[in-house]
Amino acid sequence: MMPPISPDLIAQQNAPQADALHDEYQALGRKLERRGIAIDTIKSRVKGWSVAVPSWGAGRGGTRFAKFPLAGEPTNIHEKLEDCAVIQQLGRTTPRVSPHFPWDCVSDYAGLRQEAEALGLGFDAVNSNTFQDQPGQAQSYATGSLSSTVSATRAQAVEHNIECIEIGRQLGSTALTVWVGDGTNFPGQQDFARSFDRYLDAAAQVYAALPDGWRMMLEHKMFEPAFYSSVISDWGSSLMAAQELGEKCKCLVDLGHHAPNVNIEQIVARLHRAGKLGGFHFNDSKYGDDDLDSGSINPHQLFLVFNELAEAEANPRGGFDPAYMIDQSHNVTDPIESMLASAEAIAGCYARAQLVDREALHAAQEANDVMLAFRTLRAAYEIDVGPILAMARMEQGGAIDWLTTYRASQHRARKAQERKAVGLGAGIV
Amino acid sequence: MMPPISPDLIAQQNAPQADALHDEYQALGRKLERRGIAIDTIKSRVKGWSVAVPSWGAGRGGTRFAKFPLAGEPTNIHEKLEDCAVIQQLGRTTPRVSPHFPWDCVSDYAGLRQEAEALGLGFDAVNSNTFQDQPGQAQSYATGSLSSTVSATRAQAVEHNIECIEIGRQLGSTALTVWVGDGTNFPGQQDFARSFDRYLDAAAQVYAALPDGWRMMLEHKMFEPAFYSSVISDWGSSLMAAQELGEKCKCLVDLGHHAPNVNIEQIVARLHRAGKLGGFHFNDSKYGDDDLDSGSINPHQLFLVFNELAEAEANPRGGFDPAYMIDQSHNVTDPIESMLASAEAIAGCYARAQLVDREALHAAQEANDVMLAFRTLRAAYEIDVGPILAMARMEQGGAIDWLTTYRASQHRARKAQERKAVGLGAGIV
Amino acid sequence: MMPPISPDLIAQQNAPQADALHDEYQALGRKLERRGIAIDTIKSRVKGWSVAVPSWGAGRGGTRFAKFPLAGEPTNIHEKLEDCAVIQQLGRTTPRVSPHFPWDCVSDYAGLRQEAEALGLGFDAVNSNTFQDQPGQAQSYATGSLSSTVSATRAQAVEHNIECIEIGRQLGSTALTVWVGDGTNFPGQQDFARSFDRYLDAAAQVYAALPDGWRMMLEHKMFEPAFYSSVISDWGSSLMAAQELGEKCKCLVDLGHHAPNVNIEQIVARLHRAGKLGGFHFNDSKYGDDDLDSGSINPHQLFLVFNELAEAEANPRGGFDPAYMIDQSHNVTDPIESMLASAEAIAGCYARAQLVDREALHAAQEANDVMLAFRTLRAAYEIDVGPILAMARMEQGGAIDWLTTYRASQHRARKAQERKAVGLGAGIV
Amino acid sequence: MMPPISPDLIAQQNAPQADALHDEYQALGRKLERRGIAIDTIKSRVKGWSVAVPSWGAGRGGTRFAKFPLAGEPTNIHEKLEDCAVIQQLGRTTPRVSPHFPWDCVSDYAGLRQEAEALGLGFDAVNSNTFQDQPGQAQSYATGSLSSTVSATRAQAVEHNIECIEIGRQLGSTALTVWVGDGTNFPGQQDFARSFDRYLDAAAQVYAALPDGWRMMLEHKMFEPAFYSSVISDWGSSLMAAQELGEKCKCLVDLGHHAPNVNIEQIVARLHRAGKLGGFHFNDSKYGDDDLDSGSINPHQLFLVFNELAEAEANPRGGFDPAYMIDQSHNVTDPIESMLASAEAIAGCYARAQLVDREALHAAQEANDVMLAFRTLRAAYEIDVGPILAMARMEQGGAIDWLTTYRASQHRARKAQERKAVGLGAGIV
Repeated sequence: MMPPISPDLIAQQNAPQADALHDEYQALGRKLERRGIAIDTIKSRVKGWSVAVPSWGAGRGGTRFAKFPLAGEPTNIHEKLEDCAVIQQLGRTTPRVSPHFPWDCVSDYAGLRQEAEALGLGFDAVNSNTFQDQPGQAQSYATGSLSSTVSATRAQAVEHNIECIEIGRQLGSTALTVWVGDGTNFPGQQDFARSFDRYLDAAAQVYAALPDGWRMMLEHKMFEPAFYSSVISDWGSSLMAAQELGEKCKCLVDLGHHAPNVNIEQIVARLHRAGKLGGFHFNDSKYGDDDLDSGSINPHQLFLVFNELAEAEANPRGGFDPAYMIDQSHNVTDPIESMLASAEAIAGCYARAQLVDREALHAAQEANDVMLAFRTLRAAYEIDVGPILAMARMEQGGAIDWLTTYRASQHRARKAQERKAVGLGAGIV
Repeated sequence: MMPPISPDLIAQQNAPQADALHDEYQALGRKLERRGIAIDTIKSRVKGWSVAVPSWGAGRGGTRFAKFPLAGEPTNIHEKLEDCAVIQQLGRTTPRVSPHFPWDCVSDYAGLRQEAEALGLGFDAVNSNTFQDQPGQAQSYATGSLSSTVSATRAQAVEHNIECIEIGRQLGSTALTVWVGDGTNFPGQQDFARSFDRYLDAAAQVYAALPDGWRMMLEHKMFEPAFYSSVISDWGSSLMAAQELGEKCKCLVDLGHHAPNVNIEQIVARLHRAGKLGGFHFNDSKYGDDDLDSGSINPHQLFLVFNELAEAEANPRGGFDPAYMIDQSHNVTDPIESMLASAEAIAGCYARAQLVDREALHAAQEANDVMLAFRTLRAAYEIDVGPILAMARMEQGGAIDWLTTYRASQHRARKAQERKAVGLGAGIV
Repeated sequence: MMPPISPDLIAQQNAPQADALHDEYQALGRKLERRGIAIDTIKSRVKGWSVAVPSWGAGRGGTRFAKFPLAGEPTNIHEKLEDCAVIQQLGRTTPRVSPHFPWDCVSDYAGLRQEAEALGLGFDAVNSNTFQDQPGQAQSYATGSLSSTVSATRAQAVEHNIECIEIGRQLGSTALTVWVGDGTNFPGQQDFARSFDRYLDAAAQVYAALPDGWRMMLEHKMFEPAFYSSVISDWGSSLMAAQELGEKCKCLVDLGHHAPNVNIEQIVARLHRAGKLGGFHFNDSKYGDDDLDSGSINPHQLFLVFNELAEAEANPRGGFDPAYMIDQSHNVTDPIESMLASAEAIAGCYARAQLVDREALHAAQEANDVMLAFRTLRAAYEIDVGPILAMARMEQGGAIDWLTTYRASQHRARKAQERKAVGLGAGIV
Repeated sequence: MMPPISPDLIAQQNAPQADALHDEYQALGRKLERRGIAIDTIKSRVKGWSVAVPSWGAGRGGTRFAKFPLAGEPTNIHEKLEDCAVIQQLGRTTPRVSPHFPWDCVSDYAGLRQEAEALGLGFDAVNSNTFQDQPGQAQSYATGSLSSTVSATRAQAVEHNIECIEIGRQLGSTALTVWVGDGTNFPGQQDFARSFDRYLDAAAQVYAALPDGWRMMLEHKMFEPAFYSSVISDWGSSLMAAQELGEKCKCLVDLGHHAPNVNIEQIVARLHRAGKLGGFHFNDSKYGDDDLDSGSINPHQLFLVFNELAEAEANPRGGFDPAYMIDQSHNVTDPIESMLASAEAIAGCYARAQLVDREALHAAQEANDVMLAFRTLRAAYEIDVGPILAMARMEQGGAIDWLTTYRASQHRARKAQERKAVGLGAGIV
């Protein structure tokens, strides 16, 4: 299978920028060397690090008010894989795709897996969907899903999750991510205790179906689609559920799912200590679950999260293996460009976290030298790691300047002619 | 035209409850008399007070994740008017409907006005829609509307607003409410100053088209659908725009459009002092623009808003004539029930605000007797004004217990057989 | 010992209000009877319910900017007890005082206990203080207390808590409330994991010193005095700690210690389900830990918390025995008046929660009849329970109108002549 | 007068770091040159830019719970000036001090001005204090100050502000910053409209006393010390007041004084458009008015503010001359270190804002090329401007590495021996 972007084009775009990149890389190398860090070691770690992209993220997102379609956006899993292959070709940080069912249902999953492999892609955690009804579905999720008062609805939701596991098995996945929209819009609408009991009872049935070596990840969210209460609204509820469900059940942190002002990096540390840090959905937000591009609003917070991950990796306390995924809604940009920008921002935070002088940091912490501790962390944040990321991309066949190269490829314009148009999203309101 | 609910049914439902209502009304009358208040005066004021309902509120709402339709929900303005007539028949507080275009477009507006009148309804402020694209529309609002960089798009938005004024004129309306979704999702996406300039320039063209005796109301909103910035994001921006546009331009306060923790009642007082308090969109919220039923989450805040309105009415400073409308999204209830409950909650806060002993309140404020001032206000809030509201309804032909009466009417079940079904809302995500 | 307020004065103040009270009580009785509720049963429950007051709450509070003293405010535990006796005499809901050490240190605790008993008071949970330094203290808490990096500081904090237990034992208390201000103001200042480890290690030493029948209650708080992170910042951290420490360790919920918009009533339900709901600090807030009078800002939220407590009591899941305390900072009112108002507001929410038709509520929840479930809850909230509370007070020797009676007593003016003046609080800034 | 830090020490500390700095500066120069930017131009602008430090910021801050003093902290304006001179000597960005009265009262202001000049310092905006009582003061500010119901209190507050202007005149200042803590803790405590009227009436008297060439700057704050409402709580109220008071009255933005999630950079743009952007108080915050070090929590937001300032400077719309001041509370660090770190962080954001390719940014905005616009802005943010700042410092006699140099100077240890100790701050609670 032909890669969607011509490697020649990439090489051709890279050529005139190589000299400048080498100059910047070497200058940064000297700077890091003065701090006792070998730049090539960092570059190697960056090359070894990756984050998954969600299949649905390849399409244009929207709000309850409107969706403005993009000419050439993908409308099925095959087209989505193709776009994900573009992201991986240019950025070299996103070799896996996280599928969502039933949105990505096909008749032949072995074939789908081969198709992905031919594009240089694998599959990551499987996502179930029990927050919206599908045509022909027996039970409606209007009353919730795993926590619904209606037993047939809970059974349907359990069965769907088990099907997702089975599909995931065929695709080579080893994790199921469960997010439910279950909750209420009115005080009194449901009893908090009974809802949680029902959720746990149903979730236990899903848990029981996990194959060996699999994980089940629970994703909490403060609000939306429910606006008074949500059954798994915070990390505390997620932790309680994961503890009750068992060893293979972990908590997944979506950066946009918390109350205003919350210290998310501390939550990461707490979940790791509890042995329950399962994974991340990366995005950024200013107000609610805005699903904006990772690092676009608060890049420093993203760095602080990665600083905790670096600490956790150094102190595994029985295990450290989080699943990383981008989870964004691209309402105003080309999704390919947004995911490339986001993967770069995330990898940049990973790289910066590697640059923290942990020995000095811990010493300053122990000595209560607040300013020195802060500045040790900040010294890593302020480094422009762009040259490391670009060098890692170039050496792996990716693009130094992925935006210019992507636009030069005219991928989207070509797809706009090939793919069928998406209808207007008139909004729901 | 037959009223949608049989007056006989209402009378029949009221009959067995009348004795209890009289007992409660008289007991409350004695209590208020001890405070120097004549209960019948309050009842008369309640009868003279009203709030509009939005035509779109008669349909089921949803989120970007899903919409779960309701059997029998209305799908056009005629059916919506019918449902609004039910609300007015039972509740007697909502004699006007606020239409939204193009959602409520018809070919004959004079006929629509007659149709509404036959149902006992009039029309309130007209709402324009430049936040989503319609089939066949020349310009997309993907880049914004009144503030778009694209001059043809701004012109289209201006023209649409002017059309709304013209329709409103035919319907007997005297106000245009302008809410735009214009804003950005990324730092740098647009320049704040230039966007605002474009907005003002376009809005001035709409303003210029206002007939005599009309008002133009600007509705600010912190976020959604834009998640980094919104062109009219707060009351300060709304005030600046209304000042620049002119005398007939006022600010409209939607209770769910503010930052967390904000003191909305003080904003009401500030806008009144600036001579710019134009109107309200009532709803409630816990997190963002949740559009929940009025008073369902924080009934005390709603009361505090009405306390400011009562103060403003007593101190008009050149004018006090706000337009009141319910603006909610009924995702999990029958919209007729939610609007009846909301209208009652709002009218109850109006009634409570009438019960405040303002002389005592002002005296305590002047004396810095904090506890006495607080308790003077609280004394009014704690009164159960249900008997006043129910008596006012009954005496005007409405239902003492509107919920039971509505359900006894089987209105929705009948409509579920008559009206065409609404499709699934698969969500946008 | 003479009670601080003359019983004759109370009787004399009550007399002219008794008729009106009986009229209101009887009218409410008829209303409740129509709902199948016997008003006397509710009144009895109210009489059996109580909440503790904090000794420090008897003094005037302030902010970092200023404290404005009140003439006649108490400056030692003896005067504070006297003021608490006034509160209990008039309100009859607050028979216990929660002491704080070292603020309330005396040389003879057996004597203090007798002194309180003579005033009709007992002692509630003991509060330790490791968030500020005392003159002559060996170690400073500038680096934190139970989580400090300095082992001598941790040891001092442990020892202080154990002393508090010992004092509490002498005072007849059976619970220790532990709130620490430990946290950071800078990213990187401390390591989240190591801080938490140190906290747990030190807290375990305190736990080990608990006598039989005692509880240790951990109080979480989002921020202040630390402004980047706090070691026990949320209920999830509190739960983790309480689980690790053991059966006798529980979580205490202060209503003002959460992130904006958080659903606190659901947290109450979650902690109860985890078997860790230990107690409450009641207050209200609009922005942060404002420590305002209970129910003054959001009385409906307070009711929703009590609705969860009523559910929890009906479904004890192995135990339900929370400790209730008022915890407020009275910056602008007479603390006696604020605590009387707060105790009444809290007891009113307790009473309203008793009025919820739980059978109907559960049935509506099971049937997904959202509107009916909501209105079943709301029907209880809207009842003006004032007559029940006033009758309960009067029958127990308290005041129908506690504010007028308190002011008639001239207690504060008398104390202003007896007690030594408090200096200006110039603020810290 | 001897400068507090020996220039020889600075030179000696700089020497071994100069080579590395030159390497980094040149590498960055090549990088910028490839973007068409001359690094020396940016360095010159940085040299020409400055920010004031507040006299009170030289002392240790605290919270209502505690203040932990620092050995050697200054206790009078003379010692504070000395510490501010250290900051300016090492950092070369903070040549002016903003005084606060009555905290900085002396008998001879001409002498104080000379003393400052001898230390290389001038005076910036004068700050009045009507939020706390001073010994011997006739009226208490317990009821507020400029908005108090008590006319004698308002008169006292007006008079104090006028005195501040007079002192400022003697010190060479040309601006008065007015922040009042006036507000309420209870609904109903004061009437919003009457309070605002009183505020405006009193503020107008202060305004009338402004000498030619002076500005009066109003500082809004959402909450604290008042916890239900504040008279100038948001930029809308500040704008209304500044418009009413007159041309010389402007609005001052403190970055920590807003509601959660608010887009502060847009407020900056709005105030500039209204001709009312007067100045800034720089700090950072995570929860409330945390007064943390500038850029320590959200450095990207600080950059976005400076991006607006750069836009405003390029589009002055009748004037652009904001007053910049650091306003922080240094609870856990040496204030000198915190102000050096903050000044560097602020100057770094100024420098980055100069690096934005505005032509490209505007072109992308006009073309609705969202990703390109965002990345144009981000490209400037990601540059490590440290070498520019360090070179500017070194060339002006400051320290390349100010932290190490400051510590090498042992300034604080020496002062700990010279200066009298500060007492414990036991907290107010």
